[in-house]
Amino acid sequence: MKVTIIGIGLIGGSMAIALREKGLAKQIIGVEANAAHAEQAIALQLVDEIKTLESTVRESDLIILAIPVNSGENILPKILDLVNKQVVMDVGSTKLSICATADGHPNRKRFVATHPMWGTEFSGPQAAIPGAFIGKGVIICDKDKSDADALTLVEEVYRTIGMHLLYMNAAAHDLHAAYVSHISHITSFALANTVLEKEREEDAIFEMASTGFESTVRLAKSNPDMWVPIFMQNRENVLDVLNEHISQLKKFKSCLEKENYDFLQELIVNANKISKIIG
Amino acid sequence: MKVTIIGIGLIGGSMAIALREKGLAKQIIGVEANAAHAEQAIALQLVDEIKTLESTVRESDLIILAIPVNSGENILPKILDLVNKQVVMDVGSTKLSICATADGHPNRKRFVATHPMWGTEFSGPQAAIPGAFIGKGVIICDKDKSDADALTLVEEVYRTIGMHLLYMNAAAHDLHAAYVSHISHITSFALANTVLEKEREEDAIFEMASTGFESTVRLAKSNPDMWVPIFMQNRENVLDVLNEHISQLKKFKSCLEKENYDFLQELIVNANKISKIIG
Repeated sequence: MKVTIIGIGLIGGSMAIALREKGLAKQIIGVEANAAHAEQAIALQLVDEIKTLESTVRESDLIILAIPVNSGENILPKILDLVNKQVVMDVGSTKLSICATADGHPNRKRFVATHPMWGTEFSGPQAAIPGAFIGKGVIICDKDKSDADALTLVEEVYRTIGMHLLYMNAAAHDLHAAYVSHISHITSFALANTVLEKEREEDAIFEMASTGFESTVRLAKSNPDMWVPIFMQNRENVLDVLNEHISQLKKFKSCLEKENYDFLQELIVNANKISKIIG
Repeated sequence: MKVTIIGIGLIGGSMAIALREKGLAKQIIGVEANAAHAEQAIALQLVDEIKTLESTVRESDLIILAIPVNSGENILPKILDLVNKQVVMDVGSTKLSICATADGHPNRKRFVATHPMWGTEFSGPQAAIPGAFIGKGVIICDKDKSDADALTLVEEVYRTIGMHLLYMNAAAHDLHAAYVSHISHITSFALANTVLEKEREEDAIFEMASTGFESTVRLAKSNPDMWVPIFMQNRENVLDVLNEHISQLKKFKSCLEKENYDFLQELIVNANKISKIIG
């Protein structure tokens, strides 16, 4: 199969490695607006060549859209204009907005909306790694709006690279993604800013930063060019979750202010239940 | 050297493994109030035997206090009552309160207050692991209040198990610990409660939880019996940091409410500076 990947960054690049390793792609074409990234993608052998969108879509079997969600939404209609039998999938972290865009297009059924639940705080072709998606879940949204052959191809690709498939509508995806991914990024960005604000004069102190701190603040290294568009597109859900999170923090604050340590104990015992979910 | 470890949990147990591996301890005695943990500590060969505090302090060269900070503070005077030439060190996450307790004791100079900056979200003897402290920092507080030989022994122990030494007074320690450790735990507990509150009816959805979520919420599994006393003892610093963190979160909230995405971009760009600190 001949695959075009639009955006050879963390996800697009890792997808290229996985497709090649599993023998899914005989040829991989990259479309990459960033000239430095295009060069790196070739140098790292993530793609066989870099082409323009217009020159590669028609001759591809599968087109994977792996750029920030706002750009993805802008470019999708142009891709769908060019396809006839080709399959187009995206891998973005929001689904409602791009699905709404796709819904208006006559070639909607060639598009499959997906979100593989894997990522790191790094970005660009050099962040691409082998074995990235193994054992993780991928959400496929609004599957009934895709042609059966398109859906089957995308499902097969994800299964082959080691992911398990979950199905939901785009609205449900965006709500849940706000809870299990987007809010984690906001708390991490805010935690970084909290520490940077207060500890700016203290260099040595950062030697104190232990594994716990690193773990909670790791996501704060994430790329704003990826995350601002996600927060824009999932604004209402993210605001709801953020309000809830601030209320939860205020409960901890109130316990400390009132020295109500029994309730503090209860809050922590309740938080421990997360073990059931993340193992 | 004969070492007594009071509390054979995550830290005490990992310390036992490290001391044995480095040939620092010829014999390790455990003092453990929890009968099940005492049995596990023997079964896992973390300690050679379990004894009472009274029967082991005098015959030890080094006594390591590795129980929750409130219990540690209660028991320290009893240990210091028993020592003459022995060295006593603690490994607790708060330092001001235990140092104040020690300061009133005639044997104060046999005590060295320390905080090795390593931990995981697990607890008990089964959580103890080899190689735990390697490459991490350890804070030694109020070193001038310890006898030179006691300080030298403790420094030697930490260097030998692979830690680098940092010195500060107990008040500075507690302030910085609030930023680089305690707040991370509160945000993680609160994040777990946020998600558990909203997603209680949704089981399947947790398959969505990706590595980012796991990373930020991992600390929420931490033991309340360890953490409530830490928050009690470091209440004022933790409240200050928590207030700052809530303000930082409100900046994100305000950006989203006002759709001020330029400022949102700025907030994230600023958060990215944490890379300089956690690499």
